[in-house]
Amino acid sequence: MAKIKKQPRPKAVTPKGFRDYFGEEVTQRSEMLRAIAGVYHHYGFEALESAAVETVEALGKFLPDVERPNAGVFAWQEVDENDPDSNKGDWMALRYDLTAPLARVYAQHRNDLPSPYRRYAMGPVWRNEKPGPGRYRQFYQCDADTVGTASMAADAEICMMLSDTLETVGIPRGDYLVRVNNRKVLDGVLDVIGVKDENQKAAVMRTIDKFDKVGGEGVAQLLTEGRLDASGAYIDGVGLVQDQVWPVISFLTAKGDDLLSTIANLRDAVGDSKIGAEGIGELEQIGDLMAAGGYGSDRIEIDPSIVRGLGYYTGPVYEAELTFEIFDDKGRKRQFGSVAGGGRYDDLVKRFTGQEVPATGMSIGVDRLLAALREKGRLSATPTGPVVVTVMDKARMADYQAMVAELRNAGIRAEVYLGNPKNFGNQLKYADKRNSPIAVIEGGDEKENGVIQIKDLILGAKIAESATLEEWKERPSQFEVPRGELVAKVREILESQG
Amino acid sequence: MAKIKKQPRPKAVTPKGFRDYFGEEVTQRSEMLRAIAGVYHHYGFEALESAAVETVEALGKFLPDVERPNAGVFAWQEVDENDPDSNKGDWMALRYDLTAPLARVYAQHRNDLPSPYRRYAMGPVWRNEKPGPGRYRQFYQCDADTVGTASMAADAEICMMLSDTLETVGIPRGDYLVRVNNRKVLDGVLDVIGVKDENQKAAVMRTIDKFDKVGGEGVAQLLTEGRLDASGAYIDGVGLVQDQVWPVISFLTAKGDDLLSTIANLRDAVGDSKIGAEGIGELEQIGDLMAAGGYGSDRIEIDPSIVRGLGYYTGPVYEAELTFEIFDDKGRKRQFGSVAGGGRYDDLVKRFTGQEVPATGMSIGVDRLLAALREKGRLSATPTGPVVVTVMDKARMADYQAMVAELRNAGIRAEVYLGNPKNFGNQLKYADKRNSPIAVIEGGDEKENGVIQIKDLILGAKIAESATLEEWKERPSQFEVPRGELVAKVREILESQG
Repeated sequence: MAKIKKQPRPKAVTPKGFRDYFGEEVTQRSEMLRAIAGVYHHYGFEALESAAVETVEALGKFLPDVERPNAGVFAWQEVDENDPDSNKGDWMALRYDLTAPLARVYAQHRNDLPSPYRRYAMGPVWRNEKPGPGRYRQFYQCDADTVGTASMAADAEICMMLSDTLETVGIPRGDYLVRVNNRKVLDGVLDVIGVKDENQKAAVMRTIDKFDKVGGEGVAQLLTEGRLDASGAYIDGVGLVQDQVWPVISFLTAKGDDLLSTIANLRDAVGDSKIGAEGIGELEQIGDLMAAGGYGSDRIEIDPSIVRGLGYYTGPVYEAELTFEIFDDKGRKRQFGSVAGGGRYDDLVKRFTGQEVPATGMSIGVDRLLAALREKGRLSATPTGPVVVTVMDKARMADYQAMVAELRNAGIRAEVYLGNPKNFGNQLKYADKRNSPIAVIEGGDEKENGVIQIKDLILGAKIAESATLEEWKERPSQFEVPRGELVAKVREILESQG
Repeated sequence: MAKIKKQPRPKAVTPKGFRDYFGEEVTQRSEMLRAIAGVYHHYGFEALESAAVETVEALGKFLPDVERPNAGVFAWQEVDENDPDSNKGDWMALRYDLTAPLARVYAQHRNDLPSPYRRYAMGPVWRNEKPGPGRYRQFYQCDADTVGTASMAADAEICMMLSDTLETVGIPRGDYLVRVNNRKVLDGVLDVIGVKDENQKAAVMRTIDKFDKVGGEGVAQLLTEGRLDASGAYIDGVGLVQDQVWPVISFLTAKGDDLLSTIANLRDAVGDSKIGAEGIGELEQIGDLMAAGGYGSDRIEIDPSIVRGLGYYTGPVYEAELTFEIFDDKGRKRQFGSVAGGGRYDDLVKRFTGQEVPATGMSIGVDRLLAALREKGRLSATPTGPVVVTVMDKARMADYQAMVAELRNAGIRAEVYLGNPKNFGNQLKYADKRNSPIAVIEGGDEKENGVIQIKDLILGAKIAESATLEEWKERPSQFEVPRGELVAKVREILESQG
């Protein structure tokens, strides 16, 4: 007789790189998404929710060069219904952002959608990457894009909306800044210094991306002969000559005291480049539209030192940075940094239709924004739990149920203890774990006398922590009231707790 | 020279069985989820959001018997990092419901979670099934479960919460009914009629599942020698004798005028079966708790004819049905039917830990509920779009931007037209497509005279449709007002539109 192999128990673990969110983590994010959606809607944007799943073909960026195209995305091959054993169905994948699905949706429905199409989308995206601390393989994005217009008013609008959104979710003016730059100005710089080779262009792009870290001098060294980095390693230079460097540096450091001086500095940097002048013109337009909308440089400013994404986008790029300082894990002060970014990309739909469709848009990192609000103490860490009606007599569950129903009908969050009621201490421990503000108690004696005990758990905890006997006498934390006054007394205590 | 094969353009199509949701479809669902979450929270339930992805091992039900375990789920094999070519990583899958992840989360975090644990979860789930009309491979679920208690108060609470939820989202009392049955009572019936063989039990289960369609007589025939179905085909019977049939039928038809008579009928049906008596006792407890909570039989009732899920659950089962009639595609009246269901399942966590953990919970079909509200005209079909500020002069975009900013700052949803402004007719067509209530116009003459034109598009459409010349004269749909009165006039028109 063959032995029956006992199936081992499955492990109860979150898959690697994923996590579970509990209680307030979930509701605070929902509230933030709702607030953001409110601003987007107010600006005339319409919601779009596509499925989590797209064909790998439509997702594009990760087209299958190899048999299994799962580099960066979670992908699988559908079973071909006509030939289930062949394993030759379509390749499907989880979306890795909200822009690729927008491109597919716009190409598919463009005849029915208004043009230009302002749409927002929010939801999880998935990346098949090596997870790291704080880096998960599923996370939320919250995007707004305008498709089908080359007008700078669309870019300006997104920047203004980003500013409004940050203030709406609780980042006050002064604690953030939306910075705007333009890819075409950099193209103008490359133009005047005669960098035409695509590889060399890319090398310059990669180098200026390090401006944040190494500063103007570092960039200058890296653009020419190279430099020793902090670790002592020698980083090869791009090989430009000194004359080619200064327009790049004056581009990166062009920000003046006001828009006019910034623009003048940029003009110096791009010389007579046509594309450069075009980019500067776009920045001027955005500046004018900001002014017309009443958005001053305390909210949005033109800043050519913002280079993130400059390689990816085709026109204006924008980034929202939180400017306050926080302490990192090692207790060092640092700026909180970027929470949103975007820009203009004009090749969105072309892959599908062959037509060029101009578009501009942004993505807000909701989880980073939540982290920032927590950091600043603007989200409550331990929210109040429900009032707990304890169970003194299992046979009288209906009595306790009636109390809970009364409280709930009065708009008070409440529940009856549903565990084994034998050990009353466990019931209070449960209430404590739930952060319950109040426990309600009705034992046999109370029932007989038509009264109930109402325990102020928050005051009780305070007294237990600090009070002298004197104070305890003055401020009892448990009250006996007639059964009929349940709701009134609970409400009174809740109000006193604030 | 080898020809370079031109890559064909990708097709812009929603993957088969998936769909895109636009505008109000998205926001109405968000609002409904928020309203439901509000009720769940009020009852003391805490949010839980797990990732969309679980290991196939943890999901359980679909354990891999074959190399590719994708029957029913979307699954893929991770690449083993130490041996990327081996294709021997873990199997991962998209969750197919919210209960399997709950089991994993509870088993994993049970020492940190309150016990009992009331949790709610909402979000998409995925089924790798053949799509049909109205049946999609991604859809929303909205669950509430209580884990770690065998108390009937937990089941009663879920039923009351379900009733409150339906009323909160806009289904008035009288238009729905929550019906409760109990698997143990059926087990009692099987007990007294001596059906012990698991296969025969399953056959009886399958048969009573048809009670809705074929009625008592039909079930009686199917339980014995079989019957001709509507199509003329002969359906074989289960092979019970007549004496075994009546307890089943009296179970199914036990519902009396009140709880007492229903209970009495059930006692007749289960005779002296111990498990049957236990089930009836549970139903009585639920009935008492409902009464104590003030939930009458106009909201929740014990109804043994509810058999859906009776095979799956281990104790009480419950189902919410919308009782109003709708017209189907063919113009025939029919009941709208079930929108939510659930029950008690006591083997949830056992797979992981070996311990039995009692649990009960429900799932609301959000999309069906939305469909019901639309059907009853309780969700607006064509919501109002934004006020559109038209563009008469491209060079004065900043002027139009200023108007939009004024409107937005006054709390009015507004946008500037971002398309090519050359053809003014296109701008009005755009406003029409957006369901805009108002268009604002400022041409060169207006600018010079310090005025603007404000067009009431809703009144305009009404006039165009039906008005005589007389009425037109009395009620113009376009107004010239000083530029400074933009916000006031727009607000006035919006108010007049209601």
